Amino acid sequence: MSVYREAGVDLDAHAAVVGRLGAIAAAASRPEVLAGVGPFAGAMRLPAGLEGRDPVLVASTDSVGTKVLLAAACGRYGEVGQDVVVHCANDVATSGAAPLFFLDYLAVHRLEAPAALAVLAGVAEACRSAGCALLGGETAQMPDLYREGTWDLAGTMVGIVPRDGLVVPGAEPGDAVVGIPSSGLHTNGYSLVRRVLAATGTDFAVAADMLLAPSRLYSGDVARLRAEGASLRGLAHITGGGLPGNLDRALSPRVDAVLDPGSWDRPPVFPWLQGLGGIAEEEMRRVFNLGVGFCVIVPAAEADAVCGLLHGARRIGEVVPGAGRVRFTG
Amino acid sequence: MSVYREAGVDLDAHAAVVGRLGAIAAAASRPEVLAGVGPFAGAMRLPAGLEGRDPVLVASTDSVGTKVLLAAACGRYGEVGQDVVVHCANDVATSGAAPLFFLDYLAVHRLEAPAALAVLAGVAEACRSAGCALLGGETAQMPDLYREGTWDLAGTMVGIVPRDGLVVPGAEPGDAVVGIPSSGLHTNGYSLVRRVLAATGTDFAVAADMLLAPSRLYSGDVARLRAEGASLRGLAHITGGGLPGNLDRALSPRVDAVLDPGSWDRPPVFPWLQGLGGIAEEEMRRVFNLGVGFCVIVPAAEADAVCGLLHGARRIGEVVPGAGRVRFTG
Repeated sequence: MSVYREAGVDLDAHAAVVGRLGAIAAAASRPEVLAGVGPFAGAMRLPAGLEGRDPVLVASTDSVGTKVLLAAACGRYGEVGQDVVVHCANDVATSGAAPLFFLDYLAVHRLEAPAALAVLAGVAEACRSAGCALLGGETAQMPDLYREGTWDLAGTMVGIVPRDGLVVPGAEPGDAVVGIPSSGLHTNGYSLVRRVLAATGTDFAVAADMLLAPSRLYSGDVARLRAEGASLRGLAHITGGGLPGNLDRALSPRVDAVLDPGSWDRPPVFPWLQGLGGIAEEEMRRVFNLGVGFCVIVPAAEADAVCGLLHGARRIGEVVPGAGRVRFTG
Repeated sequence: MSVYREAGVDLDAHAAVVGRLGAIAAAASRPEVLAGVGPFAGAMRLPAGLEGRDPVLVASTDSVGTKVLLAAACGRYGEVGQDVVVHCANDVATSGAAPLFFLDYLAVHRLEAPAALAVLAGVAEACRSAGCALLGGETAQMPDLYREGTWDLAGTMVGIVPRDGLVVPGAEPGDAVVGIPSSGLHTNGYSLVRRVLAATGTDFAVAADMLLAPSRLYSGDVARLRAEGASLRGLAHITGGGLPGNLDRALSPRVDAVLDPGSWDRPPVFPWLQGLGGIAEEEMRRVFNLGVGFCVIVPAAEADAVCGLLHGARRIGEVVPGAGRVRFTG
C-alpha cells in the first residue's frame, strides 16, 4: 500500500515548488540571515544598532481568510501572497516595530505548482517591500482537510523595536485620531463580498482589480512617525470588525474615539458593494475598513504635522472621556 | 444581508474561545513577555545572558498534518495541541536553539469552543514544558475552505541561540550517529495510518493511546549536549520522509550515513501498523520515524558519553565518505 499517490498528494508538484523555494527566499533576504544553517529552520542575527537598547520582538500570526477563494477564481495569486505579509506587518507595526522576518503557511487541497509559486512570489515581493527576510515556511497538501479547489494562506511576522520605541496605548481626552487610507478591502469582509456577488449573480471578474487590490503596508509610515519623534499614543490596524472593532483596541477603558464619517473619502469599491448588496451602513462599518486602514492617535497639536508626513492621511476624529468605545458623529 | 450567521461563522463560540485565550496564554508566559502592549501583536524582550554573544533567532513553521483527523475522531484534542509546539521546537532544536516564543494558527470548519480550548490548552501546556511563551495566535472559522468537521493546526516557533552555539552541519567520515527514541508516530505518516485503518476496518479507538501519543520534545536534550560541550556536527529531526528523508539534511554532499536498523527498538505501534497494513519495509522507512525521533552526529569518541546523557539514546550508525545519502546495513 503506497500512501501518497492514493492520498491525492502530488509529490512532483511538491518537488517543483520546494525546488524553487530557495531562489524565492533568496530574493527576499537580509544580510543578517545565516545561510547553510540547517534546512529544518531559518536563522537570522539581530539587526545592528540595537545593542544596549533593550530590543523587543513583536510577533503576529494571521491569515488572509476567504480572499483566497476570489483570488483563485480570478487566477490571480500574487496579490494574496502580498496580502498575508502586509497584514501581519501592519499588526506588528501597531507596536511600533519594524518587520524583521516572515514565515508563510500555505495549505492546499491539491498542489498546483504554478499557482503556489505565484503565491510565494507575492509573499517574497511583499517581504522585500517591507524590508524583512522570508525566513521559512511550510507548504502542505491535505486533500482530506480542504475542500476541492481550496487552500489557506497564513503567516507569521516577527518584528523588532527598541524598548524606548515601543508604542503602548495611552490615548488622552483631546487627542486626535488620524486615519491613513486603505487601498481597498485589504483582507477583510470577503465572506460578505462573495455572498453579495453570488446573490446578485455578479461576475466578480468585472471587479477583480478593485476586489483583489493588495493591502497597503503601514510599516514605513510608522517608521517615519517614530523617526520624526511623533508622540504615538495608540496605533490601530483596521481589519475584520472595521473601525469600531479595531480602533477600540488602541483605547483605554477611560476614553472613547469619536469619528466623523464624512472626514475621509471611501474608495469606490465600498459604495459599489453597498449599493449592489443593499448593505446597511451599520453592517458596512462593522465589516469593512471603509477606506481607513490604519489609525494613529497623537496629541491634537501634532495632528497636522502627522498628516503632512503620511500620504493621504486625514484627521478623522478625536478622543473624549468614555468607556473604550468607538462612536461616529453621524 | 448580515454575513456571519449566513456564512456559518459562530461568533458566540469565537467570543467564548477568545475570552479564555488571555488566561491560557498567561499560563504559558515568561518574565520577558511585555503585557499590555497592544492586542494586535505579542511582544517579548530578549532573554538575559545573551548580551554581547551575537544572539541568533531561529524559526520554524509547521503543522500537525492529518493527525488532527484521528484526534477529532477520538475526541482527544490536547495531544495534537502539544504536538504542534513540540514539532516546531524540535525543528528549531536542530540549530541548537532554545524555544523562545510560539504562535498558533487554528483554522476550523466550524468552531466548537470546548474542542478549540482543549487544543489551545495543549498548546499552552507544551509551551510551558518547552520553556517558551505562547505569544499569540489566530483562530479562524472558514466553512468555505475546510471540509465539514475538519480543522487545521499549524504554528510558528522562534528560538534563540548565541552565535557560538549555533549548530551547522559538518559531519566527517568516522563520526557516529546517535538516535534518540521517539514516543511513537509523532506527527507523521497519518495519511498512511488512516488508510490502513480504513482498508482493514479497524476501529482506531482501540489503538488511540498508541496512535495519538504526543511527540517527544528534544530541546532539553540539545540543551544538555550544549551544556556538556558535545561537538555537535549535525542534528536532525525525523519527520515525514523518515530517517532517509531527514537525516540526509544534516549531511554534506561528501558523506553518507550508514544505519544499522537492528540497533534500536521499534515501539509497538510500528510493527502493529506494518502487520495490519502489510506495509513493505521500504515504505515503513520512508514514512515513519520507526522509533528514532532525533539524531545527533558527533565524533565517534564522544558517542558513548552522548548516549549516557540522553534518555534511551543509542549509537545507530556511522558517517562514511559518500554523497549525502542515508543507507541501511540491512
